[in-house]
Amino acid sequence: MNGSEAIVQTLLEGNIDVCFANPGTSEMHFVAALDSMPKMRCILGLFEGVVTGAADGYYRIAEKPAATLLHLGPGLVSGLANLHNAKRANSGIINIVGQHALDHIENDAPLTSDIEGIARPMSHWVRTTMTANTAPADTAAAIEQATGTPGRIATLILPADAAWGTCTTGKYSVHPQTAIPKTDSNTIDTIARIIHEAADPSRIALLLGGRAMRTKSTEFAGRIAARTGCRLFSETKSARCERGQGRVNIPKIPYPLDPSLELLRDIDTLILVGTSKPVAFFAYPGKPRFLQPIRSQTITLASIWDDAENALSELCEALNATHTPPAYVGQANPQSGLPTGQADSDGIGRVLASVLPENCIVVDEAITNGRLLPQHAASAAPHDWLEITGGSIGYGLPSAVGASVAAPDRKVVAIIGDGSAMYTVQSLWTMARESLDITVVILANRSYKILNGELAAMGAVSPGPNARRMLSLEAPFLDWVSIAKGHGIHAQRVDNLESFANALKQSISEQGPRLIELIM
Amino acid sequence: MNGSEAIVQTLLEGNIDVCFANPGTSEMHFVAALDSMPKMRCILGLFEGVVTGAADGYYRIAEKPAATLLHLGPGLVSGLANLHNAKRANSGIINIVGQHALDHIENDAPLTSDIEGIARPMSHWVRTTMTANTAPADTAAAIEQATGTPGRIATLILPADAAWGTCTTGKYSVHPQTAIPKTDSNTIDTIARIIHEAADPSRIALLLGGRAMRTKSTEFAGRIAARTGCRLFSETKSARCERGQGRVNIPKIPYPLDPSLELLRDIDTLILVGTSKPVAFFAYPGKPRFLQPIRSQTITLASIWDDAENALSELCEALNATHTPPAYVGQANPQSGLPTGQADSDGIGRVLASVLPENCIVVDEAITNGRLLPQHAASAAPHDWLEITGGSIGYGLPSAVGASVAAPDRKVVAIIGDGSAMYTVQSLWTMARESLDITVVILANRSYKILNGELAAMGAVSPGPNARRMLSLEAPFLDWVSIAKGHGIHAQRVDNLESFANALKQSISEQGPRLIELIM
Repeated sequence: MNGSEAIVQTLLEGNIDVCFANPGTSEMHFVAALDSMPKMRCILGLFEGVVTGAADGYYRIAEKPAATLLHLGPGLVSGLANLHNAKRANSGIINIVGQHALDHIENDAPLTSDIEGIARPMSHWVRTTMTANTAPADTAAAIEQATGTPGRIATLILPADAAWGTCTTGKYSVHPQTAIPKTDSNTIDTIARIIHEAADPSRIALLLGGRAMRTKSTEFAGRIAARTGCRLFSETKSARCERGQGRVNIPKIPYPLDPSLELLRDIDTLILVGTSKPVAFFAYPGKPRFLQPIRSQTITLASIWDDAENALSELCEALNATHTPPAYVGQANPQSGLPTGQADSDGIGRVLASVLPENCIVVDEAITNGRLLPQHAASAAPHDWLEITGGSIGYGLPSAVGASVAAPDRKVVAIIGDGSAMYTVQSLWTMARESLDITVVILANRSYKILNGELAAMGAVSPGPNARRMLSLEAPFLDWVSIAKGHGIHAQRVDNLESFANALKQSISEQGPRLIELIM
Repeated sequence: MNGSEAIVQTLLEGNIDVCFANPGTSEMHFVAALDSMPKMRCILGLFEGVVTGAADGYYRIAEKPAATLLHLGPGLVSGLANLHNAKRANSGIINIVGQHALDHIENDAPLTSDIEGIARPMSHWVRTTMTANTAPADTAAAIEQATGTPGRIATLILPADAAWGTCTTGKYSVHPQTAIPKTDSNTIDTIARIIHEAADPSRIALLLGGRAMRTKSTEFAGRIAARTGCRLFSETKSARCERGQGRVNIPKIPYPLDPSLELLRDIDTLILVGTSKPVAFFAYPGKPRFLQPIRSQTITLASIWDDAENALSELCEALNATHTPPAYVGQANPQSGLPTGQADSDGIGRVLASVLPENCIVVDEAITNGRLLPQHAASAAPHDWLEITGGSIGYGLPSAVGASVAAPDRKVVAIIGDGSAMYTVQSLWTMARESLDITVVILANRSYKILNGELAAMGAVSPGPNARRMLSLEAPFLDWVSIAKGHGIHAQRVDNLESFANALKQSISEQGPRLIELIM
């Protein structure tokens, strides 16, 4: 057995059986090892941003890591943007990154670079395995890192001589961390007392995020809010929210700074559940950096490391809310007919609320035009909603690939701004190659609209040629129907909400990848 | 004047007047500054790999750096792969990378990352400018770094508060390094004596690379070879070679290991000119890491830091070769009619030799199918030939963008493998947006053919499903005509050499971007 075979066997031993890959020459022994073990499903991405973004989406739905296979430093760097998003989503991923044979690194061949240095900023854990014999134990350590709660980015660097060398130790057992710290009862009691004794409970809010966005947790939160009158908010962008009719749909803190400050203006006490203190996405001259009032206090019920569901359950009990019907429950909107006319965020949201099928997965990278979508979708059939957690655009299409691989029987609907979609457009090919059941909706506003808004907010009354050329995607328009066709995907273009609703219904009723270009 | 305006003024002062850009919110003050100074030409790339690759191609032809504008750590990471290639090409680039306001970094907003850590592996010089007042001096330092010989990657990180803050110092003068070290006369004499006294001069070779691939240098080398009988080789991949009829066309060391060892087998003395000791691209079990025989000696006539042209001129004189007609001069091949039938590397090379227009720029990322192209092109009209220096695929399309921006009156012909082209396919849109005079030829072999060869060389007789799925680009085929149309470029598909020659002639006779998909 060589080092590569020992690694693949250890991955399978650790229940890692999907590998998103874009290999190169230095990874050929690893490719041969993957080839000899067909239980590992290998999925090619034509660019590394597809590979790492798919691993992120996969984790969010499968709740276990995938492996990635990347070619040396240059392959890794092209995957870093989506590793950044995955790290911010607390997704677990095991990156296998090829490296030159150890004795060849100092010779500075053209593809040589500081792989550990490249990996560190977007990884929680980085290790170069030094020989074929250490490879399986190092692989097990990477799996244990990635499968913990929260998930972590583990990057294992594999020199070619460790990949091809003889491994006498064989595959290694994996012992994932399973215990998740629980919040102590003092903290529960203190928080219960604060809420219970508050003169005005509406000035207290629970801020939920991370794993606390799953139904069990949100339901406890909904009961607490209903029982006590405290408010609920969720972080601006969550890795995965379970939402829709019959579920607790917690309003999000908006992305733009001023509305977020306004929303939290009256909060005296912010109780964090599975997330951190909310901060401004960007700093602006003379504006606050934190979203809650300076005078307010922050208390952590459960950090991202803790068992948020258990903490909410205990808090619910301490507040005698266990049998209170929850607040914020999503309901069908019977008055809402399908909207008509020019597409906007409101209209798209109403179409989604009406058309999304039960148990679907929505991947949301709609950016500016997406701001009203989640609140409308609260009246849609129950679904999962995935968002861009790290702000690095290009997460959506690959994430849809990974989510669909994790749940082949669920429809995935990916709603992506045109600017974002271009970053990882190669994902369309993997959707076609793997016959993934994904409907991609491209919101074609033909600009980096969010930036036009930012420039206007700075007081730039009328942008000149240089600004216009950097913020618009016009001249020429991107033709998404042709782009999709070029990648092997059937597509259609629509320019009003009626046509959009029909196209979405049709593509959802069919099986396999489809693309709808919606002109905004 | 704010920090951003002082930076842009300093860039213009330093003769940096092209900015390849993909900005975000944190760069909006810089965008406004660019907008206020229309002398700076701003060119949008829809992905950062386009931006940095274009800056590389621009430098190779303009012989001066461009600026790039990148959005925080995630924007920088997506540009790193082509910064790796640019670094290996010794191209000078000035990256301006946005950063959060300094007081906001510790708040760990979603887009926060270790930007200096990210920049370092692919930069020669990294600095965070701490205030608006230090911005112009830091910009001048970045320009001085990038404009030296050889060019360097200078990354200037610009916190938002330095970008928007008041700058009282104003623009800064730039003092680029101009003196390039010359080889001392002892070294010249020693090398001249070695060549002159050699029992068999054909066992001595000059290995040229880097800036020594320009006509003046290669002509001196050709005279030395003609006069003395020593041999000439050039590095496997050069940033820019001036080649074609009437010029000295130096044979390249081949990329595959075995033929490169074979080529250098009889060399006793290797004299380096503008390059380093040649190493294997990859290590293989039981094979040498260096390309020349172990017993051979290596002598440096000029390092990448030195004035190679001057050194060759002096060596030429010391060997009394100044008036010897040079060897290795490219000549038209009158017997060579246009080839017919199925496309292969030989046939494509013959078409190029016949059709390439004088003074064109060829961007070669043809990988496996490109191995015979340079030797055929030696009989083409005089041209520049640009290659992938760092092995990180996806360099070609962006590099063509940059080369065309640098030389709008010259035809650029980019010959790109389909696997490579997909990495930075967004470049096509920038070609259309800027109406660049580029003909893109996609060599569609529908696989990572180089990797199939590597796997076969390992003894894998018949790849299984996992290997096939990772190395082939079939199922579905990429449809490059549709992909090009989607990006706003007219395209056609051809599947034999006659049609290819006609399509290439036609697109060269027209103005503006065109794409030809050549089925291999």
